[in-house]
Amino acid sequence: MSQSFDIAVIGATGTVGETLVQILEERDFPVANLHLLASSESAGHSVPFRGKNVRVREVDEFDFSKVQLVFFAAGPAVTLSFAPRATAAGCSLIDLSGALPADQAPQVVPEANAEILVGLKKPFQVSSPSPSAATLAVVLAPLLGLLDLQRISLTACLAVSAQGREAVTELARQTAELLNVRPLEPAFFDRQMAFNLLAQVGTPDAQGHTLLEKRLVRELRQVMALPSLKISVTCIQAPVFFGDSFSMTLQSSSAVDLAKINAALEAAPGIELVEAGDYPTPVGDAVGQDVVYVGRVRSGIDDPAELNVWLTSDNVRKGAALNAVQVAELLIKDLL
Amino acid sequence: MSQSFDIAVIGATGTVGETLVQILEERDFPVANLHLLASSESAGHSVPFRGKNVRVREVDEFDFSKVQLVFFAAGPAVTLSFAPRATAAGCSLIDLSGALPADQAPQVVPEANAEILVGLKKPFQVSSPSPSAATLAVVLAPLLGLLDLQRISLTACLAVSAQGREAVTELARQTAELLNVRPLEPAFFDRQMAFNLLAQVGTPDAQGHTLLEKRLVRELRQVMALPSLKISVTCIQAPVFFGDSFSMTLQSSSAVDLAKINAALEAAPGIELVEAGDYPTPVGDAVGQDVVYVGRVRSGIDDPAELNVWLTSDNVRKGAALNAVQVAELLIKDLL
Ligand SMILES: NC(=O)c1ccc[n+]([C@@H]2O[C@H](COP(=O)([O-])OP(=O)(O)OC[C@H]3O[C@@H](n4cnc5c(N)ncnc54)[C@H](OP(=O)(O)O)[C@@H]3O)[C@@H](O)[C@H]2O)c1
Ligand SMILES: NC(=O)c1ccc[n+]([C@@H]2O[C@H](COP(=O)([O-])OP(=O)(O)OC[C@H]3O[C@@H](n4cnc5c(N)ncnc54)[C@H](OP(=O)(O)O)[C@@H]3O)[C@@H](O)[C@H]2O)c1
Repeated sequence: MSQSFDIAVIGATGTVGETLVQILEERDFPVANLHLLASSESAGHSVPFRGKNVRVREVDEFDFSKVQLVFFAAGPAVTLSFAPRATAAGCSLIDLSGALPADQAPQVVPEANAEILVGLKKPFQVSSPSPSAATLAVVLAPLLGLLDLQRISLTACLAVSAQGREAVTELARQTAELLNVRPLEPAFFDRQMAFNLLAQVGTPDAQGHTLLEKRLVRELRQVMALPSLKISVTCIQAPVFFGDSFSMTLQSSSAVDLAKINAALEAAPGIELVEAGDYPTPVGDAVGQDVVYVGRVRSGIDDPAELNVWLTSDNVRKGAALNAVQVAELLIKDLL
Repeated sequence: MSQSFDIAVIGATGTVGETLVQILEERDFPVANLHLLASSESAGHSVPFRGKNVRVREVDEFDFSKVQLVFFAAGPAVTLSFAPRATAAGCSLIDLSGALPADQAPQVVPEANAEILVGLKKPFQVSSPSPSAATLAVVLAPLLGLLDLQRISLTACLAVSAQGREAVTELARQTAELLNVRPLEPAFFDRQMAFNLLAQVGTPDAQGHTLLEKRLVRELRQVMALPSLKISVTCIQAPVFFGDSFSMTLQSSSAVDLAKINAALEAAPGIELVEAGDYPTPVGDAVGQDVVYVGRVRSGIDDPAELNVWLTSDNVRKGAALNAVQVAELLIKDLL
């Protein structure tokens, strides 16, 4: 006999929430009753699930004792307001907002640190990390045993959808304005995003690092269980709708064995290794897929201890919604 | 009495050549007669210079003894065919194609290694490096004395105009097709370039490095006179029309003095340092400007020996045409 679960998704009308509901259906997640929640703005709308339209309701009035598991995909403020109510009602939660500290709700990427779930107590509180950390962890996991890793240098080229629905609309609007030679009026972004690259996502601290960059370093270290790994990171905003891409250099202390690296990437779960000569792109490869695409695997131009890799994944799907559902699949195995 | 010179521009109808002619006019370069050359395809067209239309002629029939200086901006094949004829006629040359070896025509970036010109013999043969090397050299020059540089890690996000007129047209066409929901038919690029990032520019060698990446490393080392500097580089193609951008991490052996670094960047020629908190972008800042824009100057998140910088420049102007004209300005001082 297989068990099924009552589930809630908060932020069900958003970029991540909508995809999460789709993935629950696609993967035949054992859902008994599905509760879709959002703000008063879209309460009353409905979202399709298994051939039916499920009515969206306001999160404020929700009784969390009705469900065993809730996904938080509505921003940090909503998580901070409602996570205590959920756990008080005995409900386990998976948070996608990054609002909860790691000692309360550890970051989990199933391909990298699933074992951490075993030590948790009910009701479970788990964080699904930023799409960047989730994507990078999937690729770093099979490599760590093959390198004496000294440092990572990283440039993350993020899709505008990382900032939600409004950012997607704004890139489309700006592009159309420019192609039609109409005056450009930036709204969501503080300047022209179309055909441009923004070197900063969010406001930097006094040292010049953005919250996103610090979060990425913190989450990667926690997921990889390498608390003092040196990571240099620059997050930039690219004029791409969906799909984050990463240019990554790993520095080892001795020559990298590329044959072993390739074999490990080939064998690892959650990865599609693109053959040498070709390369993966966000649009055309990663978007809509359940794996991280990896390519351009090579050592340094004349440093054999350097490993260079390019990787790309669907930030909304593999980086967020799917990772959260994969965590849920592990939780329901015998834990929930 | 000020002297003036007879000048030829080969590739005068191209992306770089057109800008070069504009810059000769803007900077009041002492041109006596200007000869504009291209292929048979655009022979007969004309290009404006100082209020007159100058007729473009075929390079094949040109008599190089008519000029003292020629700019080569028509691709490596044209340089390899005609450079010997130019020098045999006693004509000095500045090549923008990268076709000539460094021992024949050293790469020169005036802000970084102008002194190399003094040792050259007439007729002069000088290379203006790839826009990436030219841009990076301008920024590295004032920093070298302040760092015990161990290695550089670099992700270069290149504009499509780096590949000439056809690439610019193709990005515009693809974008319009997508916005109008018409089927996309890639022509110049091998796949969708609009709203996408291509992780590879050109075909990689057996080790996975592209010609452009190897050229960048070779040119930077030559210009900076650091033949064994470790440089890891990934060149990607961004959906940006004009303006190259670079995410750069410099590794020093000891803590970086950020106040000194900022002061040096502030004082250096050819650089506009953007204040902390803000950041420079290709469109809006660099494009159309004569300087390299630098921002996001910061040490590592917790590595004080790391220096992170974001820089952007107009690849066609500062990275190519202007750099070549700046070299010419030095040559005519008392050398030519
Ligand atoms: N986009 C990504 O790539 C990505 C990836 C990983 C994690 N995340 C995180 O996931 C969360 C959602 O991001 P998103 O990109 O999906 O944003 P989004 O497209 O803007 O959607 C926001 C969702 O949250 C709901 N919401 C907003 N305020 C609410 C409130 N006060 N009470 C209840 N619901 C509220 C919205 O409902 P209404 O329709 O009622 O406004 C909507 O369903 C954020 O924390 C984000 O950082 C995003
Ligand atoms: N674009 C950049 O950012 C950049 C920067 C630095 C260096 N460069 C280098 O500069 C050179 C030109 O690049 P571009 O971007 O300006 O290219 P482009 O826009 O495609 O223009 C090419 C130019 O070369 C001429 N040409 C082509 N084949 C010729 C031939 N067989 N004989 C005489 N002229 C010929 C063309 O004349 P027609 O009009 O007759 O075809 C045109 O004037 C290349 O070597 C490139 O690598 C480019």
